Amino acid sequence: MLTMQDALARLTAYWTAQGCLTVQPMNTEVGAGTLNPATFLRVLGPEPWRVVYVEPSVRPDDSRYGENPNRLQTHTQMQVILKPDPGNPQELYLGSLSALGIDVAKHDVRFVEDNWASPALGAWGLGWEVWLDGLEITQFTYFQQAGGLNLDPVSVEITYGIERIIMALQDKTHFKNIEYAEGISYGEVFGQSEYEMSRYYLDDADVAANRQLLEIYAGEAQRLIDAGLPVPAHTYVLKCSQAFNVLDSRGAVSTADRAAEFGRMRRLAGEVAKLWVARRDEMGHPLGLVPPLPAAVATALPAARENARALIFEIGTEELPPSEARAARDYVQRSLTEGLAGTRLEHDEVRVFATPRRLVALVPSVAARESDHVRQVKGPKVGAPPKAIEGFARGQGVPVADLSVFSIAGVDHHGVEKHEVGGNAAEVLAPVLAKVVTGLRAAKNMRWNDPQLSFSRPIRWLTALWGDDVVPVAVGALAADRKTRLLRTAAEPVVQVASAETFMETLALAGIVADQEDRHDLIVTGAQDEVYPDGRVDVADEAALIEQISYLVEAPTPLLGTFDESYLSLPDAVLTTVMRKHQRYLPVRDAEGALLPMFVTVANGPVDVELVRTGNEAVLRARYEDAAFFYRADRDTPVAAMRERLSRLTFTDKLGSMADRAARIAALALSLADTLGLSSATLGRAARLVKFDLGSQLVTEMTSLAGIMARDYALHAGEPRDVAEAVHEAELPRNTGDALPASIPGALLSLADRLDLVAGLAATVGLPTGSSDPFAVRRAVLGLLAVHRAHPALSGLSLVDGLRAAAFQQPVDVPSAVIDAAGDFLARRLEQVLTEEGKPVDRVRAALPHYARPSVVDTLLSQLDTLVGNPDFVAVAAAIQRARRILPAGTAAGYDASVLTEPAEIALHEAVSGVKADFGPDLVAFTAAVEPLVEPLTRFFDEVFVMAEEPALRAARLGLLATVRDLGEGLLDWPELRL
Amino acid sequence: MLTMQDALARLTAYWTAQGCLTVQPMNTEVGAGTLNPATFLRVLGPEPWRVVYVEPSVRPDDSRYGENPNRLQTHTQMQVILKPDPGNPQELYLGSLSALGIDVAKHDVRFVEDNWASPALGAWGLGWEVWLDGLEITQFTYFQQAGGLNLDPVSVEITYGIERIIMALQDKTHFKNIEYAEGISYGEVFGQSEYEMSRYYLDDADVAANRQLLEIYAGEAQRLIDAGLPVPAHTYVLKCSQAFNVLDSRGAVSTADRAAEFGRMRRLAGEVAKLWVARRDEMGHPLGLVPPLPAAVATALPAARENARALIFEIGTEELPPSEARAARDYVQRSLTEGLAGTRLEHDEVRVFATPRRLVALVPSVAARESDHVRQVKGPKVGAPPKAIEGFARGQGVPVADLSVFSIAGVDHHGVEKHEVGGNAAEVLAPVLAKVVTGLRAAKNMRWNDPQLSFSRPIRWLTALWGDDVVPVAVGALAADRKTRLLRTAAEPVVQVASAETFMETLALAGIVADQEDRHDLIVTGAQDEVYPDGRVDVADEAALIEQISYLVEAPTPLLGTFDESYLSLPDAVLTTVMRKHQRYLPVRDAEGALLPMFVTVANGPVDVELVRTGNEAVLRARYEDAAFFYRADRDTPVAAMRERLSRLTFTDKLGSMADRAARIAALALSLADTLGLSSATLGRAARLVKFDLGSQLVTEMTSLAGIMARDYALHAGEPRDVAEAVHEAELPRNTGDALPASIPGALLSLADRLDLVAGLAATVGLPTGSSDPFAVRRAVLGLLAVHRAHPALSGLSLVDGLRAAAFQQPVDVPSAVIDAAGDFLARRLEQVLTEEGKPVDRVRAALPHYARPSVVDTLLSQLDTLVGNPDFVAVAAAIQRARRILPAGTAAGYDASVLTEPAEIALHEAVSGVKADFGPDLVAFTAAVEPLVEPLTRFFDEVFVMAEEPALRAARLGLLATVRDLGEGLLDWPELRL
Repeated sequence: MLTMQDALARLTAYWTAQGCLTVQPMNTEVGAGTLNPATFLRVLGPEPWRVVYVEPSVRPDDSRYGENPNRLQTHTQMQVILKPDPGNPQELYLGSLSALGIDVAKHDVRFVEDNWASPALGAWGLGWEVWLDGLEITQFTYFQQAGGLNLDPVSVEITYGIERIIMALQDKTHFKNIEYAEGISYGEVFGQSEYEMSRYYLDDADVAANRQLLEIYAGEAQRLIDAGLPVPAHTYVLKCSQAFNVLDSRGAVSTADRAAEFGRMRRLAGEVAKLWVARRDEMGHPLGLVPPLPAAVATALPAARENARALIFEIGTEELPPSEARAARDYVQRSLTEGLAGTRLEHDEVRVFATPRRLVALVPSVAARESDHVRQVKGPKVGAPPKAIEGFARGQGVPVADLSVFSIAGVDHHGVEKHEVGGNAAEVLAPVLAKVVTGLRAAKNMRWNDPQLSFSRPIRWLTALWGDDVVPVAVGALAADRKTRLLRTAAEPVVQVASAETFMETLALAGIVADQEDRHDLIVTGAQDEVYPDGRVDVADEAALIEQISYLVEAPTPLLGTFDESYLSLPDAVLTTVMRKHQRYLPVRDAEGALLPMFVTVANGPVDVELVRTGNEAVLRARYEDAAFFYRADRDTPVAAMRERLSRLTFTDKLGSMADRAARIAALALSLADTLGLSSATLGRAARLVKFDLGSQLVTEMTSLAGIMARDYALHAGEPRDVAEAVHEAELPRNTGDALPASIPGALLSLADRLDLVAGLAATVGLPTGSSDPFAVRRAVLGLLAVHRAHPALSGLSLVDGLRAAAFQQPVDVPSAVIDAAGDFLARRLEQVLTEEGKPVDRVRAALPHYARPSVVDTLLSQLDTLVGNPDFVAVAAAIQRARRILPAGTAAGYDASVLTEPAEIALHEAVSGVKADFGPDLVAFTAAVEPLVEPLTRFFDEVFVMAEEPALRAARLGLLATVRDLGEGLLDWPELRL
Repeated sequence: MLTMQDALARLTAYWTAQGCLTVQPMNTEVGAGTLNPATFLRVLGPEPWRVVYVEPSVRPDDSRYGENPNRLQTHTQMQVILKPDPGNPQELYLGSLSALGIDVAKHDVRFVEDNWASPALGAWGLGWEVWLDGLEITQFTYFQQAGGLNLDPVSVEITYGIERIIMALQDKTHFKNIEYAEGISYGEVFGQSEYEMSRYYLDDADVAANRQLLEIYAGEAQRLIDAGLPVPAHTYVLKCSQAFNVLDSRGAVSTADRAAEFGRMRRLAGEVAKLWVARRDEMGHPLGLVPPLPAAVATALPAARENARALIFEIGTEELPPSEARAARDYVQRSLTEGLAGTRLEHDEVRVFATPRRLVALVPSVAARESDHVRQVKGPKVGAPPKAIEGFARGQGVPVADLSVFSIAGVDHHGVEKHEVGGNAAEVLAPVLAKVVTGLRAAKNMRWNDPQLSFSRPIRWLTALWGDDVVPVAVGALAADRKTRLLRTAAEPVVQVASAETFMETLALAGIVADQEDRHDLIVTGAQDEVYPDGRVDVADEAALIEQISYLVEAPTPLLGTFDESYLSLPDAVLTTVMRKHQRYLPVRDAEGALLPMFVTVANGPVDVELVRTGNEAVLRARYEDAAFFYRADRDTPVAAMRERLSRLTFTDKLGSMADRAARIAALALSLADTLGLSSATLGRAARLVKFDLGSQLVTEMTSLAGIMARDYALHAGEPRDVAEAVHEAELPRNTGDALPASIPGALLSLADRLDLVAGLAATVGLPTGSSDPFAVRRAVLGLLAVHRAHPALSGLSLVDGLRAAAFQQPVDVPSAVIDAAGDFLARRLEQVLTEEGKPVDRVRAALPHYARPSVVDTLLSQLDTLVGNPDFVAVAAAIQRARRILPAGTAAGYDASVLTEPAEIALHEAVSGVKADFGPDLVAFTAAVEPLVEPLTRFFDEVFVMAEEPALRAARLGLLATVRDLGEGLLDWPELRL
């Protein structure tokens, strides 16, 4: 059996053989290997660096007295830095797994999107979690920034979680049972320390002392920065971080503290980074500079060909995030289509496929040459001075005699006709394809070792074939050739492709399913086959997950796994959340929809099925064991104690803790209920509990279970069912299409929650713009609309009033302009929702003034459905619209009836005077009320000339019309309505 | 080339193959690997433990900005703990050197006594520095105590100094040039950190902040101890230690602080240790218990033999300190001689030899059996009741008829004669030899894995042969056999010995020179041969060193090395101190006594001479380079600046800093000079400088150069020569036989120094008892005597008055009883010195009342040399003695002369009345003054009966005699004088 210490030695040996230095762990407590100066400082600046080291990483918050099987206050990281990116870091990494004795061809090794950021260090990078049969064993990051500085060159950071890897390799279910060295377990070596340090971090650390330490450390850090000494300054930044973590694990960090401390650490780390870079500059970069990767040279142009051939263009990448793969596929489709359209090559339609590792464009036929072409170059008008004409000819390099005359927009011009010969396919295609590559962009882009490219993940190869010929594309450091890459575990991972026509076959023979739709179908049918006849996979329910999986694998290999039935006693949502969110497993249900103790995972490629199944089962078992551990612990915790913990959770820097937020939600819900006359004991109790489950261990682990666990724990604690439901419903809807609160107390809490969130964030972070919406304000607004619309009983509630009430409770000032802007945002979302529901845009817009009460809008729209066929309504509406058109801006209602002279106007005056405008936002009532006006209005418009010469008369007529106009005031935005 | 990181990997691999765990360095700053809990805590208690780890060890005080080639604020230790002692740790260690590619058979690997203690940790152990060709590469310790607790089992601690080893292996002269990994130097990896951390430790650390840290850490440590959590408490003890070290390197630790902090750390460490032991007890010792080493079983008794044969008894040890080897040799000689005397085996004289690794007793002939023997058992007296006689016979197991009668002290007794057969040699010898082993004791004893033994170093084997037979000795876990061990590097390190007679030959053939005198001669002649004809080794000057070397090697192999002539510009004392004290090299001089750039080192065994020479030369070069570095730096430092540093050096906890002490010495010297009328400008200036060189870097490194460097630096700084000499002389004599101050200012400073030391230490630590004299008070007292005796000009000075004056200046109260005791101690030392000089004991004792002025004693003794032949003196002296005998205690001088009647008494009265007692402590003057008494005294004693009947007369006669007696009062202790 490979012991833990042997594993560390083997990894060290492997990476030193790859040219890495070995250094020692940091001699002050750090939370991760990244903090060691061998990473944090060395990734800065232009000098090369390769290093491997072990880093016992201290996470006070993960203290569990050594009881939790998978969680430790100190775990062992193995850290590798490769600077610059060597171009093949994934392959090197897989080699390290082999060095550990892991046969990567038999296992399912996957690179699953996982980006990393440390706000306290001003650092971030893009990369993956590496999964071994479903187990996260490594964090793999292209480091983009540290200390707020852009990294150039970029470093590759590989961080192994040693305990997890070893537990998997040794088949252990508790870290204490790891065979650390021959004959001695991890628990025997570290168990007592794990217990005692947990005691320190959770119970015994002196808060005042650690607060003082934090201040002293920060002071030393600043002094050393001022003294120009980045190395000791960095040490003190690390000490700050540890002191802060200790305070945090002791529950002694207030929201204000947290924001301030993160700010301070970020600033200090930034200054340290700048100082380090400056010092290394001064020292002339003792380790030298990373030589720039030379620009690639394209292959030579092939000979001219005769016949049309297929075009294949493959952009090889490292594992793209699913959403990016999809978006990139669309982009390539569009970009290549446009690019080809800009040529004169005849061609078939462009088809594009995307997998995690490649974007493949296929054009079944592209002509061998462009058609020839005559181009007219416009010169001076006929009749222009001869000098101008001569000048033009000289400029075009032709004698004046060769100029032609052609008519342009009816005017005769001298000009020249250029006969242009069409380019050969390869020659013409090359810049088109290059542009496709350079135009690739993702929502979040990164850099790697290529000097000119930037994308979601590194682009590592290009395959470009037109027929048998390589299209000579060169971009950055990449030149296209006829090689493609198969699965990394293939016997021959890089192969030559004979021709564009055989490309897809080459992939297919290697098991790679390039077409995303094929993969999707394979996953669905494969999964159903696996579970038949015992269960079924609910393809509709799992559509989003299946779609995601189809972009996680190139060669889908569905496998059935099972788990112990006993775990079925955990709530359904817990089980499925773990499966879907954490593991990307498909849940399996029986005919009644009850979960079966099974799951389907989809491996990539021809793995050893038994091995991978066993591995994934072990991972799920560990996760369920964890969940069960938390679930039991939570159920043993009084609800009040969980709620207590909310004060330790920050909502946002400026908006206080979750406890503050829960209190605001409760107060707001009760006040809304009071206003609406909807108060109840249920609401009263539920408001006191709202969000309490955020203080549970399970929800801390799986935030998406918020509300669900609240209901479970509340019921378990003996709360009445309606209270438990209301606490649950407070979290609904979690996304578009999700269930809505069924009860009034639930609905009020849900609204209060979202009103609080929108009001607070609008005032601090701002309303969402574009794709940036970190706190999901847009979703909250949609929730407000949906809940309001679902509950007629709440129709009296103005969401804008609600925002105002919420604003009043915020710990920050919320200016009224912010509420206005939020209202406007809400109106725009409502308009969007309603039009997406198929409501006619004109009516939607007409009813939109009532956006603050969306259920009123709904009512109006539904009334309009009928009333647009009602001639009385239409007549009055038309009259109102006409009045608005005629009336000068600012014309007030009211008039001197005594100056009216015409019978038609007197009749209208009398009819108007008889209308009782007490119909509220009810078009049916409105129609009934204004029905007596229909006839007088017709007469009035037929017989009366409003703009009389005599001023008093004209004023009275305009006033009469304004009175009619105002009958519809506040009911609809009448001009919007198309009649 | 073996890179540093490869070396670490190889050592780790080697020790893990020996069953060691690998753990990570401590994640808080530590000064040594010992502080890592994997050592400090794990060596406690009964559980087994084996571990290897790297420990970057932080020594703020060693900060040198990376400039010093051999000194770093952070150096890399590799730490190994073997618990329990495996019985062969030295052999395992040598294996680790082989693992590094060091051919230990070619190199000179030596285990040189070096004991380790950490007062702050309450820890100590005995062991060695390991030398590789003269370079200290490892500390090897049998850990005896930690946290104030005795360790059982004992752990072996092996600590490699990696940078030094690698510098030697890579032949580098600056640590920065170490090839850390392929293509990257140590300086490139750690250089900036070395500089910046040095800046922090020496210049930039905030003193107030670190003081606060120290307090907070200590507070947390105590709180955690109170909470029963030794692991986090230990962490905070380490943090205390680091904060203290930072303060110290910033020069911010006062003497009082230091004492207090060491006390606090020792106490905290002790509580941590107790707590850890208690916790492991509670936990039932999860790692199990070390099984006790079983007691050895002696070999079977050999058959009876006929002829006398030789006896050989070898006690095999690990490398004994030279003084212990010598002392043990003497002990074995004595013990075995006595043991044999207790048997009835006829035998030759016992000869005993000692080497570092063995004590060998050889008896050329021991009889095969004891002689037979008749033993008389005494019974009741003849005439006793028959019952008693019968009872005696029954008790002896013989019939009454077999009883004999024999006369004991003239009384006839019944009795029985027992015929006892002599034992065979092996049988008789076994307990005798066992007792020799169990009786071995050293000045400082240790324990190892043997349950019953305790000695200076572990005893590892016993060889006991009488003729061809093994003597069946068993002691503790050791049983004697016929195997002995040769040099560890021998092809066959353990061999069988055919017989006692061939034993010495077996050793000799293996190159081992068992006889210390032979080794001594080999070293002397070998060294002279090596240096002939260019130079010579001054055998007399180097006698102590040669003696020491002869106990450092078993197979002396003198080698000549050279060093660069340029180093000869360093002071002679610097060069020879390095050679002798640090390296045990013999200096080589030319005919005029000037140093030559050569040295002789004595390797052990048949090494590769060129290799060992080169290695030793490199070591000496590095040491000289260091010394030259310090010397240059010191010469660039103003004398005042060096003196300034004295305030950072502690003298003792209670007696203040060295600056305090220097100030006291100066004041005392000036005051003594004043009293004696010996004040001078030279003294005034020298007093202001005294001890300043303790603040120099060179003396900090080599304390034995104190005074010598003072003179050098003072002259260099332009001080007058007499001042420089006086400052130098203040340190003289450094030991018995050393030069004495020649000048009066020097002598006064020397006396003041020693008076201050004796007065202060007598009051705080106490006067020396037995062999314990940590502050060398005895040497100081001898210095006082020697200096006083050398300077007649100082004869007026009472050393006791001097002590009193010194006492008055101490920062502690010095009770007058302490001064009395110190005076008495001084008197005893003077008596001893004088008798050792051959002065007659009676005269010494007679003159001893003047011990406070030893030069007066000298004068008196020299006068006595003549006066004991002077009949006048003898007569008066005899009269005084006689008077003292006759006079009842308390008889006062003075009498009523009018009652005297006899002419003889009247004549004496008149003569006595004429004596002028103004002769002072001068026996010649005394003799002249009392000469008129000679005749009257004779008459008086002949003619006068002192004890007259008549009381008044008797009183007058006694008073007259008392007056005579008192003429000698205060001059000598007359009764001591043998006439």
